[in-house]
Amino acid sequence: MNKGRVEAFTDAVVAIILTIMVLEFKTPEEPTFSALAADWSYLIAYLISFLFIGVAWYNHHYMFSLTKRVTKGIYWANNLWILVMAMLPVSTAWAGRFIDRSQPELFYFLIFTLWQLAYALLSYVIVAANRTDQPKVATKIRHMSVYRMNTRWWFWVIWMAVMGTIHFWPPICLVFTLIELIVMAIYTPNDSDQLF
Amino acid sequence: MNKGRVEAFTDAVVAIILTIMVLEFKTPEEPTFSALAADWSYLIAYLISFLFIGVAWYNHHYMFSLTKRVTKGIYWANNLWILVMAMLPVSTAWAGRFIDRSQPELFYFLIFTLWQLAYALLSYVIVAANRTDQPKVATKIRHMSVYRMNTRWWFWVIWMAVMGTIHFWPPICLVFTLIELIVMAIYTPNDSDQLF
Amino acid sequence: MNKGRVEAFTDAVVAIILTIMVLEFKTPEEPTFSALAADWSYLIAYLISFLFIGVAWYNHHYMFSLTKRVTKGIYWANNLWILVMAMLPVSTAWAGRFIDRSQPELFYFLIFTLWQLAYALLSYVIVAANRTDQPKVATKIRHMSVYRMNTRWWFWVIWMAVMGTIHFWPPICLVFTLIELIVMAIYTPNDSDQLF
Amino acid sequence: MNKGRVEAFTDAVVAIILTIMVLEFKTPEEPTFSALAADWSYLIAYLISFLFIGVAWYNHHYMFSLTKRVTKGIYWANNLWILVMAMLPVSTAWAGRFIDRSQPELFYFLIFTLWQLAYALLSYVIVAANRTDQPKVATKIRHMSVYRMNTRWWFWVIWMAVMGTIHFWPPICLVFTLIELIVMAIYTPNDSDQLF
Repeated sequence: MNKGRVEAFTDAVVAIILTIMVLEFKTPEEPTFSALAADWSYLIAYLISFLFIGVAWYNHHYMFSLTKRVTKGIYWANNLWILVMAMLPVSTAWAGRFIDRSQPELFYFLIFTLWQLAYALLSYVIVAANRTDQPKVATKIRHMSVYRMNTRWWFWVIWMAVMGTIHFWPPICLVFTLIELIVMAIYTPNDSDQLF
Repeated sequence: MNKGRVEAFTDAVVAIILTIMVLEFKTPEEPTFSALAADWSYLIAYLISFLFIGVAWYNHHYMFSLTKRVTKGIYWANNLWILVMAMLPVSTAWAGRFIDRSQPELFYFLIFTLWQLAYALLSYVIVAANRTDQPKVATKIRHMSVYRMNTRWWFWVIWMAVMGTIHFWPPICLVFTLIELIVMAIYTPNDSDQLF
Repeated sequence: MNKGRVEAFTDAVVAIILTIMVLEFKTPEEPTFSALAADWSYLIAYLISFLFIGVAWYNHHYMFSLTKRVTKGIYWANNLWILVMAMLPVSTAWAGRFIDRSQPELFYFLIFTLWQLAYALLSYVIVAANRTDQPKVATKIRHMSVYRMNTRWWFWVIWMAVMGTIHFWPPICLVFTLIELIVMAIYTPNDSDQLF
Repeated sequence: MNKGRVEAFTDAVVAIILTIMVLEFKTPEEPTFSALAADWSYLIAYLISFLFIGVAWYNHHYMFSLTKRVTKGIYWANNLWILVMAMLPVSTAWAGRFIDRSQPELFYFLIFTLWQLAYALLSYVIVAANRTDQPKVATKIRHMSVYRMNTRWWFWVIWMAVMGTIHFWPPICLVFTLIELIVMAIYTPNDSDQLF
């Protein structure tokens, strides 16, 4: 398939998802900062989801820069990844409004985990499509921190610990997500910064 | 015309249509999963329409990859196709909210059929524009499953049977649409997976 | 300036304007066709505005295909054109809801006229930027029907007649707009259909 | 990184921000111009923010045309710039609705200042990334009026004077913003008008 067109379509959807989240900031009915400040908890969730999209796009960009082919399998794995991303505005709005309630936080946490799995599937399909022609590409993608995290037992131990803690202290969901995103933003492949 | 710009414009519209459908998921007013679960019937319609857009884009991408020219006729047939696609958010929202009522399902079914006819017109115009210069292109487009389905008598017999059944069991509309989309997603031309 | 990026930005805005107009179709609260049919007058205004965008984009595409340079003047004339286009969702929604009232129709008519003037300014600036280097480009743009219409005295006589008639029969606005758009869609330069 | 894809993603977000601001114009409930005119104060704020985006995009386009590399640092500085821009619809809606109240105007003013600082950071990071390979690029960016304004003491004296005046006459915020934008629109580098 035409890689540029798949990338452009993905970018358009991601850009719209990002900007839909802005619509959730309601213009205050009163001309006072206290009316504006009522949105503070949504602002926190929004900032984390903004970082989420920044990290997701960076990794997506890296993987698609590497792959030479876009097969039908990659196309549908990419669509699945988009489908999960598209749940971000709803989960952010809900988790932001009820920042200290367990069920909205749990929902946000599950969407984040689903995104991670959809990303793992997408990278797996890209690795498979390039294994024979471009073995280096496959190796590079397998070294990405998003990819490696999914295959570490201790990651899933922490994950389960967070799941359990949400019931007692719901904001742990956003704290953990933020930390994981910062880790993923920092530990990127060295060559992701190069010219493509 | 400039093919890249027509493709980019089409992609932007399709990406926005996709994401408008997300806006229909209202953030639950209560912090409980049961409040979230109230949207279950819309979720079903949304997933089917998401698949719809994935299949539509895939076929659009294939046809536009093949054609060398974008004539004024192709431009307006493409606009008609966009016009019908743009009805998807409304028809999905209505059919999702009233999943067991015949008139909303019938409306969804008619929009889907109109889309299929607009697609047939678009592919016909592309075939005509390439018939003399690129006879191979014309042959390839005529072999696409979306194109062939429209010319089979048994397809329209099933179509009429579904139309009749909607009055007794409205969800048949979504079930049939889903099956047809899966068939179209699986039976794609072999070379649609190649590099362009 | 980078022509491709200005085109892409313009296309994104136009695509979003087009799709914002779809948001005005409210999902019917009742599962009956009669509830759906309540939107009929907006549907008419929407279809005309859809055609409007199709014609506007076609002419914009042609002019930008011809020009070799995008100067600062072209950039700001293009922004003015976008500014007027961005009023289309509001004017369409208002003229569609009150299809038989003079003031909403007059507003739609004025936005359409402003668009025509913004388009004339944009084409004038493009002609000026290419006059010395590309005299052929200037000649071609001056032959476009959108451009020529503005310089015909009989066009403005009809225009004033429509303005006067709106007070007695408001829908004349949409009828006249539709006819003018069809004329502009048909009488396009011969070479607008070529490869670029 | 792939410069074209970062540019395209940025453009999509900016285009959506621009068009979200249009959604704030509510279709009047009455078919009279007086109902339409109720939006007059938002229209003023909208026009200024439209000019804002035009100026921002022009400068962004110039800087990205010059840079040969897009590093991870540029990517995240660009995201920060997008984050601040994304606050524009809310701040415009609020400052437009309460045009004579100090707190909404102050908020708009702060967002504008934050944008200027985010822009300064972005240009600083671009200068740093090009200092060794492309010293000319660094020099050119340092000569942009947006960049230079931030390093002038008299600019910040005026800025503080405006901050103080907002409490007595809130519209000073929009007047000052408008003047600064016009200055930035006029004083652009000579070569920003060239072919890229």
